[in-house]
Amino acid sequence: MIKNKYERKIYLSDIPREKALEQILSQYKPKLRTVTKNATESIGNVTAEPIYAKRSVPHYHASAMDGIAVIAERTFEANDNNPLRLIKGEDYCIVDTGNEIKSPYDSVIMIENVQEIDENIVEIIEPATPWQHIRPIGEDMVQGEMLFTQGHKIRPVDLGVLLSSGNQSVKVVMPPKVTIIPTGNELVYPSETIEPGKIVEFNGSVMAAFVSEWGGQPLLHEIVKDSPDSIKEALINASRDSDVVIINAGSSAGSKDYTVHIISEIGKVFTHGVATRPGKPVILGEINGTIVVGLPGYPVSAYLALEWFIKPLINKYNNNNHCNRHKISAKLGRRIVSTMGSEDFVRVTLGNINGELIANPLTRAAGVTMSLVKADGLLVVPSNVVGFEQGDYVEIELYKSIEDIEKSITITGSHDLAIDILHSILKNTNTEQTITSTHVGSMAGIMAIKKGEAHIAGIHLLDPETKTYNIPYVKKHLKDNNIVILPFVKRMQGWITSSNNLNEYRNVSDLVKNKIPFVNRQKGAGTRILFDLILRDNNIKPSEILGYNREMFTHLSVAAEVAQTNSVGLGIAPAAEAMGCSFIPVAEESYDLLMTKEFFESHSGQTLYKIITSLEFKQEVEKISGYKVDTNIEPIYI
Amino acid sequence: MIKNKYERKIYLSDIPREKALEQILSQYKPKLRTVTKNATESIGNVTAEPIYAKRSVPHYHASAMDGIAVIAERTFEANDNNPLRLIKGEDYCIVDTGNEIKSPYDSVIMIENVQEIDENIVEIIEPATPWQHIRPIGEDMVQGEMLFTQGHKIRPVDLGVLLSSGNQSVKVVMPPKVTIIPTGNELVYPSETIEPGKIVEFNGSVMAAFVSEWGGQPLLHEIVKDSPDSIKEALINASRDSDVVIINAGSSAGSKDYTVHIISEIGKVFTHGVATRPGKPVILGEINGTIVVGLPGYPVSAYLALEWFIKPLINKYNNNNHCNRHKISAKLGRRIVSTMGSEDFVRVTLGNINGELIANPLTRAAGVTMSLVKADGLLVVPSNVVGFEQGDYVEIELYKSIEDIEKSITITGSHDLAIDILHSILKNTNTEQTITSTHVGSMAGIMAIKKGEAHIAGIHLLDPETKTYNIPYVKKHLKDNNIVILPFVKRMQGWITSSNNLNEYRNVSDLVKNKIPFVNRQKGAGTRILFDLILRDNNIKPSEILGYNREMFTHLSVAAEVAQTNSVGLGIAPAAEAMGCSFIPVAEESYDLLMTKEFFESHSGQTLYKIITSLEFKQEVEKISGYKVDTNIEPIYI
Repeated sequence: MIKNKYERKIYLSDIPREKALEQILSQYKPKLRTVTKNATESIGNVTAEPIYAKRSVPHYHASAMDGIAVIAERTFEANDNNPLRLIKGEDYCIVDTGNEIKSPYDSVIMIENVQEIDENIVEIIEPATPWQHIRPIGEDMVQGEMLFTQGHKIRPVDLGVLLSSGNQSVKVVMPPKVTIIPTGNELVYPSETIEPGKIVEFNGSVMAAFVSEWGGQPLLHEIVKDSPDSIKEALINASRDSDVVIINAGSSAGSKDYTVHIISEIGKVFTHGVATRPGKPVILGEINGTIVVGLPGYPVSAYLALEWFIKPLINKYNNNNHCNRHKISAKLGRRIVSTMGSEDFVRVTLGNINGELIANPLTRAAGVTMSLVKADGLLVVPSNVVGFEQGDYVEIELYKSIEDIEKSITITGSHDLAIDILHSILKNTNTEQTITSTHVGSMAGIMAIKKGEAHIAGIHLLDPETKTYNIPYVKKHLKDNNIVILPFVKRMQGWITSSNNLNEYRNVSDLVKNKIPFVNRQKGAGTRILFDLILRDNNIKPSEILGYNREMFTHLSVAAEVAQTNSVGLGIAPAAEAMGCSFIPVAEESYDLLMTKEFFESHSGQTLYKIITSLEFKQEVEKISGYKVDTNIEPIYI
Repeated sequence: MIKNKYERKIYLSDIPREKALEQILSQYKPKLRTVTKNATESIGNVTAEPIYAKRSVPHYHASAMDGIAVIAERTFEANDNNPLRLIKGEDYCIVDTGNEIKSPYDSVIMIENVQEIDENIVEIIEPATPWQHIRPIGEDMVQGEMLFTQGHKIRPVDLGVLLSSGNQSVKVVMPPKVTIIPTGNELVYPSETIEPGKIVEFNGSVMAAFVSEWGGQPLLHEIVKDSPDSIKEALINASRDSDVVIINAGSSAGSKDYTVHIISEIGKVFTHGVATRPGKPVILGEINGTIVVGLPGYPVSAYLALEWFIKPLINKYNNNNHCNRHKISAKLGRRIVSTMGSEDFVRVTLGNINGELIANPLTRAAGVTMSLVKADGLLVVPSNVVGFEQGDYVEIELYKSIEDIEKSITITGSHDLAIDILHSILKNTNTEQTITSTHVGSMAGIMAIKKGEAHIAGIHLLDPETKTYNIPYVKKHLKDNNIVILPFVKRMQGWITSSNNLNEYRNVSDLVKNKIPFVNRQKGAGTRILFDLILRDNNIKPSEILGYNREMFTHLSVAAEVAQTNSVGLGIAPAAEAMGCSFIPVAEESYDLLMTKEFFESHSGQTLYKIITSLEFKQEVEKISGYKVDTNIEPIYI
């Protein structure tokens, strides 16, 4: 633990995010490069200068209809009682839509209002007003008119304006070059095999995709090892040829977090540490006049900070509006605790439950990329707020359109694989609805329905007294709520054991006898209740079980844990299979869906009911070991 | 006008748009093609099958902090009064964030809470709880977990999940092939020179860009002449190798609109004519089992219908959610008249005036592409509604984010080139605000300020009595409104004449004497008021002026019209210059900006004031012939 000059312990400051951004934006002086592109290849590019119409559109007086061109003055006498005959070549000529109207003609009569007498004579019974059905020169665009200012992002419809106004090519801004340098001895390329302690480098690829989406040109550097010299070399080289350099990670204050020292040695550090959670260990600085941003290693922190600092830099280069996300107000489904002095960024799912938008926080762990994938929106807890209570109305920045969110069905409670199959079939059945699912366990699922926080809860709760599933719990907790239980699947619960334990483990008493560690589920999970009942029936106390307090949140995590350690868990067969574990059947349980009568009878509820009772659903679900589906199920009204 | 079998007069039906869409969607049976892509190249693609995690993330118990790994049980005694010493290799090992935590270690203590005694001994004063600061196996993703259903559009953040879960490649849907066939004898390629009667083919390029944006693969066919045989051949070939074929135009009911006859001859027509304005002449049919859509020729009609029918077909192929635009409620700034029995699609600009969103309709001409470029949103007038009154609250589908709209400054009234310069400098000054401008003439501009429909109106109104500009009008019409007049530019008005008229035209009396046609401006335009005053001063009656009723809406349109015909107009020098006309100065006029005191004092108002009094603005504007800017102007409070 000897510290060299790069291993000094340093402390992060707590600069407010907005202030840090303001500072770096003021330091950033974009050096614009421009290029002339074919208009057809310019979609998504940003104009480098104002664009003017090079010709008028239309560039001649054009007929707006199929018909005849006439001299309006000569038609003024025509009426129902006094049809007027016109002579071709003298009084009229035939025109199609788009044809030029030449002097002396100054009006067009639609073909529907013309009676053909012979090849050279027509009759009309209504006068034409001057310039009727003619698109005058410049109706759409006038030569010399400014069509777009500089800094305009070219859209498909703009292409029509460019081409028709004679702008076949257009001077656009070349996207800013953003070099992304992934660092770390633990990083391996996706194609390499990964040992424990190693992780796949994916932050760089994700950042490159974001940079490209925001209008930058990403340059993904090869992985750089945790060595001050290599990092220094990479930074110096990148700063010579980039508009912005991102280095990831090493931006924190640990023993291998050299970055801040290196930047201050060869450049300048403006900020080290912003007052946010996650995302705090950000470095903002410059080397050779090029902005350098050090981002934290945890994916969620990295992507949030990327958006806070890199997107505005790209926007400034492109002279683009900073496009903020749409914000809505939603009711908070669960309490959120935050620390004073730091902005807190909480990913949430959203659902329209009984006409009200409910926001449920996802895990706040900065390492959980899936929390960003699943998020419908982002709740920013300001730095001077210690949190929000359940039921508070909070402002959410939307990741998806509100229309899509309104149509999503939120499922909570216990997790089951058949929910994914339901989702997959729903996607094939209609293109409108999706399922948003979170896992909180069966008991929390019941509470979520009670509090109107979800449309559906999946539950599998064994009543110790009656030895029946689910109904006693619903009757106890939701008796006044007009609830429907929809029988969903029967599934076999059993012991999940690693192959190494096969001979040592036969039943629950072996846990105590052979001191085999157990992997438990979280409180309120149906599987935990089953385990507690088994313990009670066998007169075993929880304290006698090694690992009783080691909680996992899904069947698959239990099996994964069992596979890695010589332990035992309780769970379903497919989880054991997926992780190469053995499975000893214990009991068939009922995993049912709980919902309000109102939701069951809604269009969404009936759509799901139809899928659940379909042969396709039965066939797909019964491919899973130990699963049974009854297509003749009826809803149980409580 | 002899009609062959392709020239029969046929009438369009009036099928409701939703019904026509339903029918074609039910007829469309996508034949999916899939391809396996590198995950890094899959952004924007749609998954062809559910994607499962191939490994857990993390795939080992990982330290979440820099610190030491310990056996929690052995730390339970530690407290402030009783520091506990731990021995390296026995009680602890050093771990960095991301390192594997191996058995028997089951907890991590942060480096900040560890006191180093010597190289092999540390001291702690707090016990560790089991599994603290450890990211357990599968915290983020568990092997076998469904990460995405089929039909999921891959975003940058999803890439992180794909790569870290071992999905280096991913099976995605190949985009549907959409062949676009432009037809018409009048069409020329953008690179060709265009004669009157010819137009540049740009609809095809715009459609290709839209198709690509919506997730299709556009194939732009070469231009096909208006001949039944060529069209037939192109349609048959395209139908063999496409998922959808678009033919544009020829979908109407005119003498050269063969398309519907050809499709019914070699395939089937489902719909010809939907009850919409614009967009009515749409053909929906099929050839060889491939959906064929005939779109109208006017750009606005074509792009609207493209979105109604082609986007849902692409979405169905991609199994994608139909992403509706966000809708908001706005107050209508002007009356809209519609016809019963047809949906009416009105493009509108939007502005936040005094805290209220105001929607102002743009031109409804289907040939004006700029109306789509300028549109902030779309107002759909249902088929059973005859229109809306000014002041009605209407629902608008947004083309832009509401945040961007809220920040835009709406300028109406008379048009002036210096407004574009103001906009261009504003874009360079800050990246947040933009200007939305519409041209309605000076008098309508005054009314717009009075009714709270715009932030600013540009006016140049000469009072016949006092021979002064603007102030008398504002005092008369807006005396109770707390108004500010901001002197903007002085500009020279004069006669715009074609070079051919140079000898015949010297002053206004020549219009009558030499019977030279005049090109007038619309009622309420400042230039028209000036012209009327000149006529009055010269004792000429409007009826003596040839073309007095021929109205143009901008200076540039007047000059363009003058250049094409041997006529005379009144307007500003730069318009004459742009169109190669001669200019005879008549009078210097004051073009001023009108706004409420409240807006002038707002951040936006002050930002503009600063630009208008800047040297940069003066220098840019004075490059225009006949323009003068005074940087020392003061607001005039009325």
